[in-house]
Amino acid sequence: MSYSTDPRAARSREAILVAARRLLASEGPGAVTHQRVSQEAGVGRATVYRHWPRSEQLLLDVMDGADLPLFKDPETPVRPWLHRQLRQMADDLMPPAVAGLSLTLMQSALWDPEIARRRDESNKVIRERIHAAIRSAVAARELESDADPADLTAMLVGPIVYRTAMQREAVSDGLIDRLLDGVGTWRR
Amino acid sequence: MSYSTDPRAARSREAILVAARRLLASEGPGAVTHQRVSQEAGVGRATVYRHWPRSEQLLLDVMDGADLPLFKDPETPVRPWLHRQLRQMADDLMPPAVAGLSLTLMQSALWDPEIARRRDESNKVIRERIHAAIRSAVAARELESDADPADLTAMLVGPIVYRTAMQREAVSDGLIDRLLDGVGTWRR
Repeated sequence: MSYSTDPRAARSREAILVAARRLLASEGPGAVTHQRVSQEAGVGRATVYRHWPRSEQLLLDVMDGADLPLFKDPETPVRPWLHRQLRQMADDLMPPAVAGLSLTLMQSALWDPEIARRRDESNKVIRERIHAAIRSAVAARELESDADPADLTAMLVGPIVYRTAMQREAVSDGLIDRLLDGVGTWRR
Repeated sequence: MSYSTDPRAARSREAILVAARRLLASEGPGAVTHQRVSQEAGVGRATVYRHWPRSEQLLLDVMDGADLPLFKDPETPVRPWLHRQLRQMADDLMPPAVAGLSLTLMQSALWDPEIARRRDESNKVIRERIHAAIRSAVAARELESDADPADLTAMLVGPIVYRTAMQREAVSDGLIDRLLDGVGTWRR
């Protein structure tokens, strides 16, 4: 559909995006559903479906360029902060729309260079943030670790993605503790 | 297309499945491509494409019911055996068709109960095999570990799926060692 030639459609599209960004920022990706977004934007649910037949597509457009707070600005002591970030990530990933989006992204990126670029960009941000947190724990002598940034990310984030997307079960705090134990030796 | 009413199509379909199962057993999932399967089955590549437009679909039909050897029948000492199994899994997952299949399965299972059942079945097999291997290492006093079967699987398999499907980089032996270190205390 060509939004550009229909000012009303362009306005509703923009209102939906603004509402969806607000929901993403205040309640996380699980809140970006057709129902919540249509209420928040004050448009009919059918209008949201017309612009974005699937909630993954809407979520993808909304997240693109959004500066998500996950793993950003580590606090000391690092371990409890990292625990909270991993907890948040696990909870964010559980709604089917979000799990579906992650899998859609990974899958499309296998053959679509533009989506591969977005995936790589998002990988890079997560890797650098986790590495910054680990570096700050090492600098404060809270942790001894010599794992490289990509390995750290795979060891902390990989099991959470696997548990939520593949095993479809909740991530326990005990599992998060085990993951943190795996990245090095913590001084408690 | 209705194979049942066209005996020639039914025959070529069966020949393709037999050839694909042979390739899967001898060379792993990466070998189940349109080109290799058409050569092995002695049919034209177009015929394979007609039955299975995408190689993921073919691979899914071939793997269904196949008793894959991965993580089966642990050997002692367990650690080097487990290392080889994880190495094999990482190598198996790298070809885009296989990475794509895993992601397609996970994604479709979010809304398709029949595929969710197949995913849960396959999760269960992997979890039980990994747990059997870990139990045998604990029984032989090679390992101390109190992690539960689902956590063990997430910690060993999750980072490998993440590295191959999301980071799209090779899994190093160093990463596999770190993952094994994470499941408990090994006596070396």
